[in-house]
Amino acid sequence: MSKLLIVGTVAFDAIETPFGKTDKILGGAATYIGLSASNFNVDSAIVSVVGEDFPQEHLDMLAARNIDISGIEIVEGGKTFFWSGKYHNDMNSRDTLVTELNVLADFNPVVPENYKDSEIVMLGNLHPGVQMSVINQMTEKPKLIVLDTMNFWMDCAWDDLLAVIKKVDVITINDEEARQLSGEYSLVKAAQKIHKMGPEYVVIKKGEHGALIFNDGNIFFAPALPLEEVFDPTGAGDTFAGGFSGYIAKHEDISFESMKNAIIYGSNLASFCVEKFGTQRMESLTKEEIIERLKQFKQLTQFEIEVN
Amino acid sequence: MSKLLIVGTVAFDAIETPFGKTDKILGGAATYIGLSASNFNVDSAIVSVVGEDFPQEHLDMLAARNIDISGIEIVEGGKTFFWSGKYHNDMNSRDTLVTELNVLADFNPVVPENYKDSEIVMLGNLHPGVQMSVINQMTEKPKLIVLDTMNFWMDCAWDDLLAVIKKVDVITINDEEARQLSGEYSLVKAAQKIHKMGPEYVVIKKGEHGALIFNDGNIFFAPALPLEEVFDPTGAGDTFAGGFSGYIAKHEDISFESMKNAIIYGSNLASFCVEKFGTQRMESLTKEEIIERLKQFKQLTQFEIEVN
Repeated sequence: MSKLLIVGTVAFDAIETPFGKTDKILGGAATYIGLSASNFNVDSAIVSVVGEDFPQEHLDMLAARNIDISGIEIVEGGKTFFWSGKYHNDMNSRDTLVTELNVLADFNPVVPENYKDSEIVMLGNLHPGVQMSVINQMTEKPKLIVLDTMNFWMDCAWDDLLAVIKKVDVITINDEEARQLSGEYSLVKAAQKIHKMGPEYVVIKKGEHGALIFNDGNIFFAPALPLEEVFDPTGAGDTFAGGFSGYIAKHEDISFESMKNAIIYGSNLASFCVEKFGTQRMESLTKEEIIERLKQFKQLTQFEIEVN
Repeated sequence: MSKLLIVGTVAFDAIETPFGKTDKILGGAATYIGLSASNFNVDSAIVSVVGEDFPQEHLDMLAARNIDISGIEIVEGGKTFFWSGKYHNDMNSRDTLVTELNVLADFNPVVPENYKDSEIVMLGNLHPGVQMSVINQMTEKPKLIVLDTMNFWMDCAWDDLLAVIKKVDVITINDEEARQLSGEYSLVKAAQKIHKMGPEYVVIKKGEHGALIFNDGNIFFAPALPLEEVFDPTGAGDTFAGGFSGYIAKHEDISFESMKNAIIYGSNLASFCVEKFGTQRMESLTKEEIIERLKQFKQLTQFEIEVN
């Protein structure tokens, strides 16, 4: 089994959806990625930063899932990154109400000594300079570096973003971001252009419309599971990335065939994430539930047509 | 092989897309459905109406594909239904520029005697009263009645629409229409409500995001093939319906397993339709191209995960 190094935020979120609202609850890209990847029982570590206000119980919860938390810096007297958002009725768009960077503003990631040789590196959404710093700390060239990012960094850190994109093997972004990054409306053309920026594999997340992975003329598609209710989409993209990187780390196979399964698992895990507020559903998730849902994905997509 | 009866418009379209514009060209729901279904070499007939201005060559083209055209009434001195529309840059929305009902205004469909026992009936998008009249003319109860409709009839012929929906086995509508018809945002819930209105099978078309079929707790999904360029989306939904009903008619199998294959073929054929203006691509389509694309659909969707 490969070691999986995760960098990203560990944070507080306050979320409002048509179904209700929360106070400050556990959130952050690395939290969701770590929780999701932990379903593969991989040896993982999170590199992040929190403030003194961050409850020990959250750290204990992560550690109990075999996630090394020695790379989560706790800043004395500091406050944890806080994001608050409100989803519109269609759940596909949201307004950011509050962003308090707090300790994230001066975050200087330090990769723990025994994870500097991690085979798989998952760079969660964060300033591209921080993502680059993590890559530069690796003493062995990772077998696979996966990068997640968002439009915010295209708007305000374009050069840094391009520099880190050049260094990674897989990029995961949503459809609108793929269009913004490439200047192409067609996702097929967008993926072609993004390939040329560096990543051999381009994963385009389309939310409720599933996800596509592109590589050298090959395309594979993982649908999202049609759900009666999407309760809270927060963290779904990170959970997808955690399922993807966790699957790859467990199976130590970076072929396109393996990545097909990895995006199916990413979509599988994301379908749970949205069922409750925040990390709630991911914390209670069992292996049996994941396998049951995998069967649903098969029923949803697998067909037999005789070609004659 | 079953007989396939198709009702719908045979019309002129004038189309404008970001790639160019056409003069009056061949269009209409029944035209696209018939062309699409003809790829299965089924015994089909179109019930429709055109004006004296309609070129014989179009009728000959349909007849050459084994489509019985004796049910296409030619109104002396009448003008053919004409629609003109302009697509926006994203190709997902369009403005209707002109709608001239012409001979369609007084259309009284007459099912040819030897198609009154058709096993499969495909009711293309048209006034629900016309669709009902076709059902009422059948002398044998069809094995499967498929209905396509759109939001226009929900706005202006609600009661007629509900009455015909009650009579059909399969309804195909797009996602926004499913939401309007059911009052539910979630497509899973929308399908449940639409089931209760009559149809045992609900097909929800999501354009570039594929199509879902729902039946009694079962869900199956056919993606749309990711394309470099969508040249003209006109007729894609009708082509999908023609592929669906043509497949069912050829295989004489109305099980859910058969319908899964039918929506894959629907999506397959629709992916060709959008490659050129109007019916152009469908007229030149070969069996080899369809089989080649079927392989692409398999590569796009089929995976093997060992559950352990």
